[in-house]
This record gives sequence, C-alpha cells and structure tokens, in this order.
Amino acid sequence: MPNLRLLLAYDGTDFTGWQIQEGRRTVQGVLEAAIEDLTGMTPRVLVAGRTDSGVHALGQVASLETRSTIPAEKWRSALRVRLPEDLIVREVTEVPPRFHATYSPISKRYRYLIHNSLVEDMFLRRYSWKVRPPLDVEAMQAAANRLLGTHDFRSFESNWPNNKTTSVRTIHDLQVFRTGHGPMMQGFSCHTEESGPQDFIAIEIEADGFLYNMVRIVAGTLVDVGKGARTPDDVERILLAQDRQVAGDTSPAHGLFLVQVYYPENDDEL
Amino acid sequence: MPNLRLLLAYDGTDFTGWQIQEGRRTVQGVLEAAIEDLTGMTPRVLVAGRTDSGVHALGQVASLETRSTIPAEKWRSALRVRLPEDLIVREVTEVPPRFHATYSPISKRYRYLIHNSLVEDMFLRRYSWKVRPPLDVEAMQAAANRLLGTHDFRSFESNWPNNKTTSVRTIHDLQVFRTGHGPMMQGFSCHTEESGPQDFIAIEIEADGFLYNMVRIVAGTLVDVGKGARTPDDVERILLAQDRQVAGDTSPAHGLFLVQVYYPENDDEL
Repeated sequence: MPNLRLLLAYDGTDFTGWQIQEGRRTVQGVLEAAIEDLTGMTPRVLVAGRTDSGVHALGQVASLETRSTIPAEKWRSALRVRLPEDLIVREVTEVPPRFHATYSPISKRYRYLIHNSLVEDMFLRRYSWKVRPPLDVEAMQAAANRLLGTHDFRSFESNWPNNKTTSVRTIHDLQVFRTGHGPMMQGFSCHTEESGPQDFIAIEIEADGFLYNMVRIVAGTLVDVGKGARTPDDVERILLAQDRQVAGDTSPAHGLFLVQVYYPENDDEL
Repeated sequence: MPNLRLLLAYDGTDFTGWQIQEGRRTVQGVLEAAIEDLTGMTPRVLVAGRTDSGVHALGQVASLETRSTIPAEKWRSALRVRLPEDLIVREVTEVPPRFHATYSPISKRYRYLIHNSLVEDMFLRRYSWKVRPPLDVEAMQAAANRLLGTHDFRSFESNWPNNKTTSVRTIHDLQVFRTGHGPMMQGFSCHTEESGPQDFIAIEIEADGFLYNMVRIVAGTLVDVGKGARTPDDVERILLAQDRQVAGDTSPAHGLFLVQVYYPENDDEL
C-alpha cells in the first residue's frame, strides 16, 4: 500500500489546532475530509507535530497509507481544489513504507514572532505577539545561548498530567534577531517616530524534539530577559531548577509557526 | 466648538466599508459609537475617503466638531480602549474650524498590493490580490507613465448612477515596483523554486482626487499589461476612449490601502 508524505502550510487562526475534535474545525478534520472526498476512503493521517489552537505552520508534515490508485503527483492539485484557502498542500511525495510522519523526524524548527513596537501593526496581529516595551535582542540572544545543547528542559514544559517520558532534549540552534514587517505597512511606520523597519523579533529554534509548550515558554522567558526583568544567568538558573514555576509565562499561540520538519536523508535511517 | 482631526488605520477585512449602515459593522459606525461612549454626545464624523467593503487604511483622516471638554491630547488613548483591534486611532489633533476632512485634501495616496507568485502566501491573503502568472513590472510601469498628469479618467470609473461631476483628475505619481513579503514567511519560499523574496508588486498612486473604483480599475488594467494581454499604447487608447467597457476589470477590494491624505500646510489654504 503506497505511503504518502504531505507537506502542509496553514494559517492557524481559524482552526482549533491540528487534532480532530467533534464539532470543531481542526486541520486534521478538514484535511481528512478532503482526502476522503478525493479517494472515497476514510484516511488515517499521521502528523509530525500536533499544533495547538491558533498555531500556524509553514512546513508541517503529514503521512498516510492509502489504497487509492491516484498517483502521488496528482494529489497536490486534486487536494488544492478541495481545501479552504487557509490550508495549503505544498507537496505530495511517495515515501518508503517505514516513513512515519510522527516518529521519523530527526529534528524540527519553530519560529516565534514578536511585534516589538509602540505602534500597532494590525495586519500582522494574527501572526505575532505584541510586546510594547523595546526589547534588548542582544541580551535575549545571550540568554538563548545558555539553552543550547542537551538539557533537561522540565522548567520549560507545561505541567501535563500524562507526561511519563523524559524531558531531556537537544536544542541544535536558537537564534534571536530583528526583522522587518510586511509590505502593506510601507509608508505607515515612517510617519511616526516610535516605529522603524525592524519592528519584529523572530526567535528561531531547532531541536530534536519539543516538550509541551516548550517554544512558547522559552519565548516568554526570553522576552523577560529582553525587558531587563531577568538576566542570562537567571535563564541558566531556571534551566537547572527543573521547575515550571520559575520560568516565564507561556507566550500566546498566535505568534508560533512550525517552520520545518527534518527527516533522515537515507531511507534506511527512517 | 473645537474641531478635531483623527488619523486612522484599519484592517478592512471585517468591516462593510466606511459608511454607517443599519445592521452592518462599518468603520464609521464603530468609530462613532466609541466617540459617543467617550463624550456622551452623538458625533457627526466627516471622512477623507469613504472606503468600500474590504478596503484597508493606513492613514485615513476623519474630522469632527465636538462640545466635549476632553483635551485633544487625551482622545487617542481614551479612544484606544474603546475600539476593537482592527481600528486604530494613530493621532488626534485640534485643527482650525474650517478644516474639513472631506473637502480640504489636496491629494491622496493609495497602494494596491498584488501577490504575484505561483506559491500561496495565505498569511497575506486578506491584504493582496493573488495573480499567479509572472507579471512584467517594467511594462506595467511604462503603461502607468501614460496615465500621469491631468486627464479625463472616465474609462477608469465604475458606472455610477449619480455621477454628475467632472471625471478629470490629475495623477501626480504612479509607481509600480516589486517588494518583499512579511517576516512570517521567511524560510518558506526558499524551499520552493517557484517563489522568491520579491513576490509582491505594489502600485502606488497619488492624485488630487479619485473616481469611484479608479485605483482598482487602474490596477486591473495594469495587470493585463503585466500579463502581456495589453500594451502601454493600449492604455493610452483606453484613456482616450473615455469608456469604462474598454478598460480592465475592477481588481478585488482587499488589495487596496488608503495610505495617506495630504492637506494644505498653511491653514489659510484650507
């Protein structure tokens, strides 16, 4: 039975997260309905990262086994006409039978976007966390560097009743940088003294795996550092404390993007 | 009685345009309700440009006379807490009694934003017109240059029953240029061959006044040129024909932004 890999992007604003729920509009629910409409068969779709309500994806990965005889290269355009404009299938490829969207990834990359300005940018309000006080990005990066590598990230995990597994993860990359905003705002900011072309701060994080709410708690804690309320040394102490209570708040879901999921290049490593 | 000038920005997505309408959510309706809540008096708000349903504004200007004793410098923050997140008061200033938002402008600037890509950018779909075939921006600019200056723009006006005034207008500036997209899409486009960092095309147009749907018909016509379906010479012929039927389609409202309204610098020119 062919195994298909779907590369997906979605705007999380109007979805109640990934996972299918009775009476709710979810990404899985909308996608499975489109696949059922296409193939006439009820699919069972696996996913790399079950995003929460409001979280966006640029490069989510799903996989499914199907008895459909529709060739993989026809799926993308066939699904496109069956999906709403906030859920896009970027690619569909046939993969080896042992490819599993959930268990095969070697790492994932998330982005957390902060609009750091005294001026509103309402056109991007669904896609960034608004933080008004000017943040010290260099201090945030210095604090972020303390989180690099392999650690027990229990302090950065929401207390989740059924968590029985290890909270040790490896962060391969963690960058904090200023970036510009969208083209529809050109000519807007330049009329006020409060704003500039680098109003957004992106936190990019790649790790072998993520605990529940880990990126959002890291972002909330780094914003505390950016405000001067915590120091890079504090972040190291938070890490060592292994206690959710000592870390910063969980930042809002709508600033979070699943950017990319990395799988082994060689099939025999799947 | 003090006369106040309000500088406004709004996301037109969820408004049925500017003008107040029974049972509809309009910018004027929401703004006047907030002002009434603040002052206890029913205001009569004048506006520079009555935007249609779905059209956005970065620098709309409204004015009102008020008996309120609240000083002008308190209005902005007082209105901010009374307005929804898709309507922002950027500035409130006291202006001379003869300042009139509708009749005092010397020119206005609009932007029309086109997402010109084979790749979806769903995060900006509310704020741009999606045109998939690659457009020739140089040809569009060459055609745009034919529209500069003072002409009868009847061909670029929707047939509007009560139009009794002249359709002669002066376009001071008309620029067509490629531009980048928002920061949330970084890392998305680079994984496909079809897209690039300059996926958006902006049409910026400043004139002493605009006919009904003029920017959207100009945009629709320039896109025809960008596709190679019309030439710059054709655009000159359309202008001379003074016939709406020969121009291009009216492009969608959600790509249009009122960017700025210009008033005389000297009060005695109001």
